[in-house]
Amino acid sequence: MSGFVSFVGSGPGDPELLTLKAVDRMKRADAILFDDLSSGPILSHAHQGADLVGVGKRAGRPSPKQDHVSRLLVDYASGGARVVRLKSGDGGMFGRLEEELGALREAGIAYEIIPGIPSACAAAAAAGIPLTRRLTARRVQFVTGHDVVGHLPEDLNMAALADPAATTVVFMGMRTFPQLARMLVDHGLPPDTPALLAEAVSTPEQSLHRSTVAQLSDRLAQAISPAPALILYGPLTEHEDG
Amino acid sequence: MSGFVSFVGSGPGDPELLTLKAVDRMKRADAILFDDLSSGPILSHAHQGADLVGVGKRAGRPSPKQDHVSRLLVDYASGGARVVRLKSGDGGMFGRLEEELGALREAGIAYEIIPGIPSACAAAAAAGIPLTRRLTARRVQFVTGHDVVGHLPEDLNMAALADPAATTVVFMGMRTFPQLARMLVDHGLPPDTPALLAEAVSTPEQSLHRSTVAQLSDRLAQAISPAPALILYGPLTEHEDG
Repeated sequence: MSGFVSFVGSGPGDPELLTLKAVDRMKRADAILFDDLSSGPILSHAHQGADLVGVGKRAGRPSPKQDHVSRLLVDYASGGARVVRLKSGDGGMFGRLEEELGALREAGIAYEIIPGIPSACAAAAAAGIPLTRRLTARRVQFVTGHDVVGHLPEDLNMAALADPAATTVVFMGMRTFPQLARMLVDHGLPPDTPALLAEAVSTPEQSLHRSTVAQLSDRLAQAISPAPALILYGPLTEHEDG
Repeated sequence: MSGFVSFVGSGPGDPELLTLKAVDRMKRADAILFDDLSSGPILSHAHQGADLVGVGKRAGRPSPKQDHVSRLLVDYASGGARVVRLKSGDGGMFGRLEEELGALREAGIAYEIIPGIPSACAAAAAAGIPLTRRLTARRVQFVTGHDVVGHLPEDLNMAALADPAATTVVFMGMRTFPQLARMLVDHGLPPDTPALLAEAVSTPEQSLHRSTVAQLSDRLAQAISPAPALILYGPLTEHEDG
């Protein structure tokens, strides 16, 4: 008898931004494997006997090897357990599900993928900024600010990223933003393009800081240990300006 | 005594993909104004005495004037009502909230914006395709396929859209896709780039059709009255191919 794995997007952090389907799967789970950003009050939906297993990469611990997480998933499900694998935001965007899904397929274990609220959508809603806007922001793009070793990816499409008519959201880009900002300006993006730094979106610690691409670059260059956050830039017209 | 308006993203259609916060606001609403794509079972969360007001643009009726919707919102809230304005998917992406928010500000009525599951994230989850993927799809972009009069927008950034290393999601692009596809290929996107047509995502009528940019263009050119749907193209590697 084999178990089942639900990959569940847990949204930006506010447990009220879980979907009904996510809550249902958590309530019925025998084991929940969670990352650092999908912990805390989100886990209150687990039932009392469930195993709650942190597999995050922060929190001062050494990073669990990816194959360790995959093995945990396979071990639980092979024993007949209903397993929930929580991923913050939406698992399909920068969630890196491939390895874990591959391990399940190899072991012949069934799974489903349940989408979650992307942190970028929650940040925009909190700031009152639409990600798209008729005429001025018809395109929105999401990119990662670091490659597998933490550097700015080398193959960036600068014509896409320096487009002043698009809203851009940079995930995991705090450390590399000063470098990216220089490249953006070199490719024609005005340095006074509006920017938003969004930290701990939808949690009690939420912080939204509005500035410009140039100012934000200066600020982050001086930050000693930037916390995880999202960076938005582009025609970030607040609804208030409409 | 003034009311309050909650702009609520209702997700792609499956009522189980509503957030807890969305359900809470619907349960407490005196009036719910909804679009065509946020109707049906989603509205089952309304309480019995609530006014349910369809303000959609399809369903064979003439399009309600935008100022009519804004006036309804202001009228309800001015009378002290708690109002929910439902928008399918996430209201911040192609949700066109500006006019309605402007009307509320002018009338001095408070509001909040609650994010929803974008239809694109639900489509990708249903198809088992990650929107981003390490190395091969580090950028994902969302664009609209029609301007205010229904044509393909004129100011498209083709360097961004024809990038074979990005996943692109086209909203409202069924009618204009044949034209867009020609432009993409002219700008170097291989005609055999994978494409996905996703209709009625997350509902019992869901249809996912995988092909290529060229094949999908042919198919849509022959469609007499294409229904609303999403088009995805790019390195759409299924998790299965990992």
